[in-house]
Amino acid sequence: MPASPIRKLVPYAEKAAKQGIKIYKLNIGQPDIETPPQFMEAVRNYNVPVLEYSHSAGNESYRRKLASYYENLGIPVSFEDLMITTGGSEALLFGMMSCLDSGDEVIIPEPFYANYNAFAIMAGVKVKPVTSYIQNGFALPPIADFERLIGPKTRAILICNPSNPTGCLYNSADLEQLRQLVIKHNLFLFSDEVYREFCYEGHTHTSVLQLEGLEKHAVVIDSVSKRYSACGARIGALISKNADVMQAALKYAQARLSPPSFEQVGAEAALDVPKSYFEAVNTEYISRRNFVVAALNKIKGVQCPTPQGAFYCMVELPIDDSDKFCKWMLEKFSYLKQTVMMAPGTGFYATKGLGKKEVRIAYVLNITDLQNAMETLAHGLETYQEKVMRTGK
Amino acid sequence: MPASPIRKLVPYAEKAAKQGIKIYKLNIGQPDIETPPQFMEAVRNYNVPVLEYSHSAGNESYRRKLASYYENLGIPVSFEDLMITTGGSEALLFGMMSCLDSGDEVIIPEPFYANYNAFAIMAGVKVKPVTSYIQNGFALPPIADFERLIGPKTRAILICNPSNPTGCLYNSADLEQLRQLVIKHNLFLFSDEVYREFCYEGHTHTSVLQLEGLEKHAVVIDSVSKRYSACGARIGALISKNADVMQAALKYAQARLSPPSFEQVGAEAALDVPKSYFEAVNTEYISRRNFVVAALNKIKGVQCPTPQGAFYCMVELPIDDSDKFCKWMLEKFSYLKQTVMMAPGTGFYATKGLGKKEVRIAYVLNITDLQNAMETLAHGLETYQEKVMRTGK
Repeated sequence: MPASPIRKLVPYAEKAAKQGIKIYKLNIGQPDIETPPQFMEAVRNYNVPVLEYSHSAGNESYRRKLASYYENLGIPVSFEDLMITTGGSEALLFGMMSCLDSGDEVIIPEPFYANYNAFAIMAGVKVKPVTSYIQNGFALPPIADFERLIGPKTRAILICNPSNPTGCLYNSADLEQLRQLVIKHNLFLFSDEVYREFCYEGHTHTSVLQLEGLEKHAVVIDSVSKRYSACGARIGALISKNADVMQAALKYAQARLSPPSFEQVGAEAALDVPKSYFEAVNTEYISRRNFVVAALNKIKGVQCPTPQGAFYCMVELPIDDSDKFCKWMLEKFSYLKQTVMMAPGTGFYATKGLGKKEVRIAYVLNITDLQNAMETLAHGLETYQEKVMRTGK
Repeated sequence: MPASPIRKLVPYAEKAAKQGIKIYKLNIGQPDIETPPQFMEAVRNYNVPVLEYSHSAGNESYRRKLASYYENLGIPVSFEDLMITTGGSEALLFGMMSCLDSGDEVIIPEPFYANYNAFAIMAGVKVKPVTSYIQNGFALPPIADFERLIGPKTRAILICNPSNPTGCLYNSADLEQLRQLVIKHNLFLFSDEVYREFCYEGHTHTSVLQLEGLEKHAVVIDSVSKRYSACGARIGALISKNADVMQAALKYAQARLSPPSFEQVGAEAALDVPKSYFEAVNTEYISRRNFVVAALNKIKGVQCPTPQGAFYCMVELPIDDSDKFCKWMLEKFSYLKQTVMMAPGTGFYATKGLGKKEVRIAYVLNITDLQNAMETLAHGLETYQEKVMRTGK
């Protein structure tokens, strides 16, 4: 299995940190936003004598309240249509294993969240990538490109909306095309919607669960990690109105017994977080994004489209090899005792050779840190071009 | 995938509970023992502004302290030989996926913990059962029975010691035979040792990590669920001195990002639980075991060997079909508004047809509850024989 591009450079970062170098970790979607106090207080106040297994599908009280959250967003689900999972990761794994057999194929627009590969491998599923391009902001590829890949083994299409790593938000017209396609070919439409709350400039999010006639097809992956800046909680959800899918998923859920207890309680309480919390967070992310995108596009040879959602950008850099460059930044480079950790672009593509000039940057730090990071990156690029690329070292 | 025999009857139990029937849940290893205050207090005192992802292998402070715990037991491991997982379940899944390829085979003495099936299916691994028998207390089957099953696809042997569901504890001579076998055929020896602390009457536990020359072969599955009565924590560990195995497992760990944060903190603190805690808990379990085994063997036609460890017994009942009987107990039977929930034996065997007269009983409740449960079970058996078996309904 390929190592995760998001985490594989951790040993180099640890080494650099030991040498006193400050590292701006833009490689991972770990926001510095405070976890809402509602979450933390509920955990602290959870007072039980025995920390028991919970229901395999998650605490019923949490499931019911979570269903209301979706209802309020105009997504019509009951608590029986959803299951609490150990992170969005497990939701996707269970979803794949419940809907696809070993050897089946799933079509995914690339670049895509690199860990999808791992879950596909675990589920024995083959990923068929359909390439999207930086030139049009990684927009949904033409439906004909999807259709060309559909064969007898194709069972599903997987999208991430808004997208990690591109920040692209699919609009209603995009989703309508996908809706028709999955109905036509009787496919599942998996949608990773963990960044739902992070849509900028009045763009609204549409869930595949809201698309007409997709009750049997739509499977949503969700997580509290980003929504409430609670990545360490490992609480996600799998949602589908297809009862057969949910029944199959429950078997996997029962095998691993239950999701973690304390964080379920925290996540349930976090549902009381007011709308103003998300508004404040989004305002913050918009300024970070605006700063980062402007700073990147100012660097010679750098191209960065403006993301409409999530908190990543997929950036083209004037480099020869993103794996080499990202490692070099940690191993060989520092500027004023600082360096930048990024995720090499190659890991987000299934097509060999793509992403060699791209990196994923998560704009999850405050503006001051991002300023320092961008300055450091600019110097790093200059030095890398001079010392490594020009000399062919 | 077959449904878990431990949890598949939950809907029937929920229905019975709604009708006001008290259910003694002996189907699942969910002890009523209090979680140590050290665990709970550490969680309450964990005060961070952002609930971040932890290291994919778990917090280093916890890994270092956990390594000391093993060292103190005479199990020589460093913190780099272990990884914190989301429950023992994930440890086994990662272990299998790291050591075996799709299509490979693992030999497991049956009856075995039913959820092993699920993890084998997820890993694409084929289970080859070697049968143990109630007549000798489910002792380790003759090594010749293992050897007969070894073929070109065999990569590993998996034991649970002490055993869930049988309570059998493998002694040094048993382990020595397995040691020779796995060296001879170059196999991995997985050992699920989550019940390590539950060995009774002076029996001592030997870890496969203590066996000479098994550094490359031994892979241990561990969990805090039973040790600290913290099943809801979902904190386990994968341990091996084989660096290749740990490196492969880290890739899966990175894909799912990290184990839950709060419970890692609790589990780390629980390592300070004094020896007296385990002594008191074991004293309690011994009296429960003694009571249950005596009560069961008093019922006509019931056979129950005395477990030497863990807190389960695999019991033969005078019935025709354990699935039918266990469901009937929940659906059709009550005695003084009480009934008993048990795990049907069939789910613990891979060989079709075995376990039809057996159930697994977890003696995880206090003696009063166990008394009521055994009385209810005795009446249930009598009624079932009269009303169902005799009439052929």
